[in-house]
Amino acid sequence: MIGDKSHKHVENDDQYKGLNVNEGVAQPNTFNEDSIKRFLKNKRKKLLTPDAYVEGILNGNITTLSQAVTLVESAKKEHQEIAQEIITKCLPYSGKSLRIGITGVPGVGKSTFIESMGKYITKRGGKLAVLAIDPSSERSKGSILGDKTRMEELSSDPNAYIRPSPSAGSLGGVARKTRETIVLCEAAGFDTIFIETVGVGQSETMVHSMVDFFLLLMLAGAGDELQGIKRGIMEMADAITINKADGNNIEKAEMARVQYKNALHLFPPTDSGWNPKVLTCSAFHHIGIDKIWDTIQGYVDLVKKNGYFQHKRNEQSKFWMYETINDRLKSDFYQNDALKTMTKGFEQKVLGEEMSSFVAARELLDFYYQSQKNNK
Amino acid sequence: MIGDKSHKHVENDDQYKGLNVNEGVAQPNTFNEDSIKRFLKNKRKKLLTPDAYVEGILNGNITTLSQAVTLVESAKKEHQEIAQEIITKCLPYSGKSLRIGITGVPGVGKSTFIESMGKYITKRGGKLAVLAIDPSSERSKGSILGDKTRMEELSSDPNAYIRPSPSAGSLGGVARKTRETIVLCEAAGFDTIFIETVGVGQSETMVHSMVDFFLLLMLAGAGDELQGIKRGIMEMADAITINKADGNNIEKAEMARVQYKNALHLFPPTDSGWNPKVLTCSAFHHIGIDKIWDTIQGYVDLVKKNGYFQHKRNEQSKFWMYETINDRLKSDFYQNDALKTMTKGFEQKVLGEEMSSFVAARELLDFYYQSQKNNK
Repeated sequence: MIGDKSHKHVENDDQYKGLNVNEGVAQPNTFNEDSIKRFLKNKRKKLLTPDAYVEGILNGNITTLSQAVTLVESAKKEHQEIAQEIITKCLPYSGKSLRIGITGVPGVGKSTFIESMGKYITKRGGKLAVLAIDPSSERSKGSILGDKTRMEELSSDPNAYIRPSPSAGSLGGVARKTRETIVLCEAAGFDTIFIETVGVGQSETMVHSMVDFFLLLMLAGAGDELQGIKRGIMEMADAITINKADGNNIEKAEMARVQYKNALHLFPPTDSGWNPKVLTCSAFHHIGIDKIWDTIQGYVDLVKKNGYFQHKRNEQSKFWMYETINDRLKSDFYQNDALKTMTKGFEQKVLGEEMSSFVAARELLDFYYQSQKNNK
Repeated sequence: MIGDKSHKHVENDDQYKGLNVNEGVAQPNTFNEDSIKRFLKNKRKKLLTPDAYVEGILNGNITTLSQAVTLVESAKKEHQEIAQEIITKCLPYSGKSLRIGITGVPGVGKSTFIESMGKYITKRGGKLAVLAIDPSSERSKGSILGDKTRMEELSSDPNAYIRPSPSAGSLGGVARKTRETIVLCEAAGFDTIFIETVGVGQSETMVHSMVDFFLLLMLAGAGDELQGIKRGIMEMADAITINKADGNNIEKAEMARVQYKNALHLFPPTDSGWNPKVLTCSAFHHIGIDKIWDTIQGYVDLVKKNGYFQHKRNEQSKFWMYETINDRLKSDFYQNDALKTMTKGFEQKVLGEEMSSFVAARELLDFYYQSQKNNK
């Protein structure tokens, strides 16, 4: 199959009896309705001092944590200033969680998996935060925590904190906010962080740059082409799990497991010294979840011993230093109020062939630098 | 085949008799040795005035054009200032060429194809400029005009101008420079511009954003997985050409043509109203080149009539307005001399866990904005 991008679930065909593939739910609004509600509420309630937020977070107060995350996600300058202060003060208390990236195409059962795995963790005394990176710029369908009802048990679990993807913005901006949210969640005492993303685009690279372990969910009975999984994403995976390995589908899942295992052998050895594993599970029936958790622990044991765990985190920090600079350079420009109207006007002139893109860009930059010189 | 990334040319196996796949040549230096030589020469020779460059370019003087392109590629501030003035003055004379993007994995025969197609064009009185975008950040092998001897005839053709990819830099920066070079080439009278890139990464998107027609070269007897062609790249193609359709390989090429043609039917309809074509050719034996040229002309006729040609160019201009802003915001920061040492130092501190990425980024940005305020 070349280039089938319609994500039709042929596995639901009669020939694949026993395998049932959910439709991914429609992508939620590009703005986060919850955030807006919380904003308005916050406005009425007035903002706390940064120290008050930090104190609440360190005490594990989920409401305060949520309010602080809302500030992190806000594009407003005054919110960003408080947010940055909160982050800086939370930093000494961060870094102690295990960060796990989870990806897979719509319909693979990510929500069910996160619910099942999440309950497994919290039942053993763990505290779990579930975050998401939603590449809203892509036209994919995907349930990125958009529908919390899919995680009924977990969302009412006092030891779990579920936070949907930050509202609209560039992928880089969204990813930076998620990266900052990790800090706050860790300071609030969450020892396991899931970062969910949909397995179809650039967002995997972003998630990979902020997690310790990267898990790819797949289905049996569907070629990797069909599942829209790009080669690069398979290469990033520390483990691949074939979901929906239950009922009539067990044998097929086992075959897929062997197939992917062989495929992984073709990849060059990993820097971590870890051999990526292929497993099967049934998130719906809670089968195989323990094995996946053991695999993750096995990975962590290995890379903490051989030093790769810390090495990777340091490299990620370096990456995020530059990403943060690049993203802030852009957001400072595009958030400049005086420039906003001017930029829109120039865009129209460029579209109408009244002005070249080069001239427009230069004049906008000149204006920007001049205004910085005068106003700051 | 899942995840084979080694680009081994299995087509050279005995079972595919008659098909011979070249190894891609090793990637050239990330810096452009020619550019450096020309720089040093320029330095000795002193720079011309912007008007002198523009006059030379408008007279079709290739030496002056080359010198101006070197200024465009330079990271030095004084060079960039002259370059921007030259570009602005050349703009009214630009836009009249047909811009064609050419991609395909290493070994597909891009150089041979460009030579064959290029000679076809210049023999009919056309003037051809061949530029390239080389994603040097990726570890791919690819002959991006690195080895001019592969285009012996074309490189000695007075009506052809071959310019290797700009020297090292971010993909965005390299792409911007190529986009600016197009303006100069058009002002110098080149009526056809080829933009070559290697078919393995993000660079296709960049090329696609600056060309009127996008041509994908492929081989028969190799799955698309094997050729490392991502789905998104096939979707961008206005035509796919199966190269090396000669000798024993003709039948196989024809089979591949039908296969790709069927695959293209699965894609959603294009915005242009054009149905992407699949053709075969043998660039080495100059077979089928005329048909490809006719196809390109057919496309141009259609989209000039239905208005899509200009619509796409306008959208591209808008894209490049924002790309230019984003790229300049970054390069202004990273070219700031006072910041360079500081940034390197902070990077080391972040790697050594003495400083968090967030704090490092903020302090660097604060310093940058402060220095802008004081010095500009």
